[in-house]
Amino acid sequence: MHPFTKRHRDSVAALGETRLIEAIRRWLGDVCPPPPFGIGDDCAVLPPAPRRQLVTTDPVIYGRHFNDTVPPRAVGDKLLKRNLSDLAAMGARPTAAVIALALDPRVRTRWLEQFYRGLAAAARRFGVAVVGGDVAQADGFLGAFLTLFGEAAGPRVVPRTGAHRGDWIYVTGTLGGSLLGRHWRFTPRLAAGAWLAHRREVRAMMDVSDGLARDLHALTPPGAVPALTAAAIPVSPDARRQARHTGHTPLHHALSDGEDYELLFAVAARADRTALERAWQRAFPRLRLTCIGRFADAGKIPPGSLRLGAFHGYEHLQ
Amino acid sequence: MHPFTKRHRDSVAALGETRLIEAIRRWLGDVCPPPPFGIGDDCAVLPPAPRRQLVTTDPVIYGRHFNDTVPPRAVGDKLLKRNLSDLAAMGARPTAAVIALALDPRVRTRWLEQFYRGLAAAARRFGVAVVGGDVAQADGFLGAFLTLFGEAAGPRVVPRTGAHRGDWIYVTGTLGGSLLGRHWRFTPRLAAGAWLAHRREVRAMMDVSDGLARDLHALTPPGAVPALTAAAIPVSPDARRQARHTGHTPLHHALSDGEDYELLFAVAARADRTALERAWQRAFPRLRLTCIGRFADAGKIPPGSLRLGAFHGYEHLQ
Repeated sequence: MHPFTKRHRDSVAALGETRLIEAIRRWLGDVCPPPPFGIGDDCAVLPPAPRRQLVTTDPVIYGRHFNDTVPPRAVGDKLLKRNLSDLAAMGARPTAAVIALALDPRVRTRWLEQFYRGLAAAARRFGVAVVGGDVAQADGFLGAFLTLFGEAAGPRVVPRTGAHRGDWIYVTGTLGGSLLGRHWRFTPRLAAGAWLAHRREVRAMMDVSDGLARDLHALTPPGAVPALTAAAIPVSPDARRQARHTGHTPLHHALSDGEDYELLFAVAARADRTALERAWQRAFPRLRLTCIGRFADAGKIPPGSLRLGAFHGYEHLQ
Repeated sequence: MHPFTKRHRDSVAALGETRLIEAIRRWLGDVCPPPPFGIGDDCAVLPPAPRRQLVTTDPVIYGRHFNDTVPPRAVGDKLLKRNLSDLAAMGARPTAAVIALALDPRVRTRWLEQFYRGLAAAARRFGVAVVGGDVAQADGFLGAFLTLFGEAAGPRVVPRTGAHRGDWIYVTGTLGGSLLGRHWRFTPRLAAGAWLAHRREVRAMMDVSDGLARDLHALTPPGAVPALTAAAIPVSPDARRQARHTGHTPLHHALSDGEDYELLFAVAARADRTALERAWQRAFPRLRLTCIGRFADAGKIPPGSLRLGAFHGYEHLQ
């Protein structure tokens, strides 16, 4: 559905701000706590947080994170899941969210309704309360900016930094070709992230959102380089499908495409990898886990390792 | 300064995302906590919050909340202050913020630097840590979406609901004509908000951001109407100045213009108003406090009361 309309009566301008906010509260339904202290006051009020809190913010913007081919329900779903993936990447679970909407007055009310219903369904599924937000006018624009709060699911959170030279590099699921639909059909790896945060041998973790080749830099310890085995990279069926049309190899897509929303993590060099992989199999029998290489000394890259320099990943702002 | 440039080398596109994020961290300086767990990881990590937390989100969007006449430093300053005003309105103090930026690749790097330096200066002044954020590309657009966290400054927070029929209506400062510059030169009423939250006779509070005539509805208890005294409305010198050019009366501007960022609150009908006003005088000798009327029975509006129906305030989405 195209989000804009030329018919005034179908647009959010016909509703006006006050009725739009009432409608949003209705569309969100039970994921929106009752007043006071929810949507409608100057601030939302959250209960005290006895543990450290995690906060992340990610938007969906028309023309960038979605287009007319993505159903509006899926856009709302994707908005929450993008942020959930960031929580998953630190081993956290979600609690609450606020959402700032910026939109042209010609946005179709029906589009927005479907968007919020999709967001609400995802919030219900993952146990997130939508506690507040803002609506602002922005001519020729449609974007929603969500800020998500969470808490550690266990005794620690796992940062991106923490890997050492020699550590093994693992990734969940398969990579590449997300443009064929997985960029909005993905499942945030919350359960897997929480499980991995309980394993002491997992030293650093992040999610793959800009392509493995690009994201892996953030996990790489100083003085090391990722030495990957090309044959080990879990190339997705979508990456193979897309390669038929683009002239790139499936491996190129697996390394360079963005929006995989899989977990990428480092496992201590001396860890019992067999024990880890067996425990994973029992916990997540249907989610692939692959060791794709290790962090080598910058001067001692094993022969035959994949050179990541040739792959760029998704570069923003270009 | 116009935020967009035609010269590639002056634009954020020339920097690219990675170097832009490094630059943002540098521009923010000491208001940005050191890694890990600050900017650069999947999530920001905040300390446990022993009290209830307050959350609010408000953006600044080019063409809507600022234009080429507002210095970029003032735009960053305004972004934080808009959100601080929401915390003030509940009697809270700020703790931390995250900021999601959406921008065209042609945005001028120098504009953005000044924006972040202005934001950092305000964050330093008000004791806010900028703990995380996101940068997303949005063609033809420039907007920054801030989510601010805070905690109650005293034993309670003051919601918008809570006024009763017969309660007195008060407002701080003077109103109207913010377009002449006060829309970005204002001071968020944090100290006043915290002070008022400690006074039991203050039953409901909000900030005036869309014009008194519009905002007052949110404070009005069911079955009541605001009965205002026209002569009591604290009309700002800017409202008088603007009236000379617009054909409207100064009172019209005081009631209808947005972005006053003053506090509007209800005082219990039986309160000792003289004691309240004297205590206020001692605490805030330079900030005007005005009783502008009271909430009357819907059927018993005192003769001579101002009819708010003729004034609309700022209507979004039109």
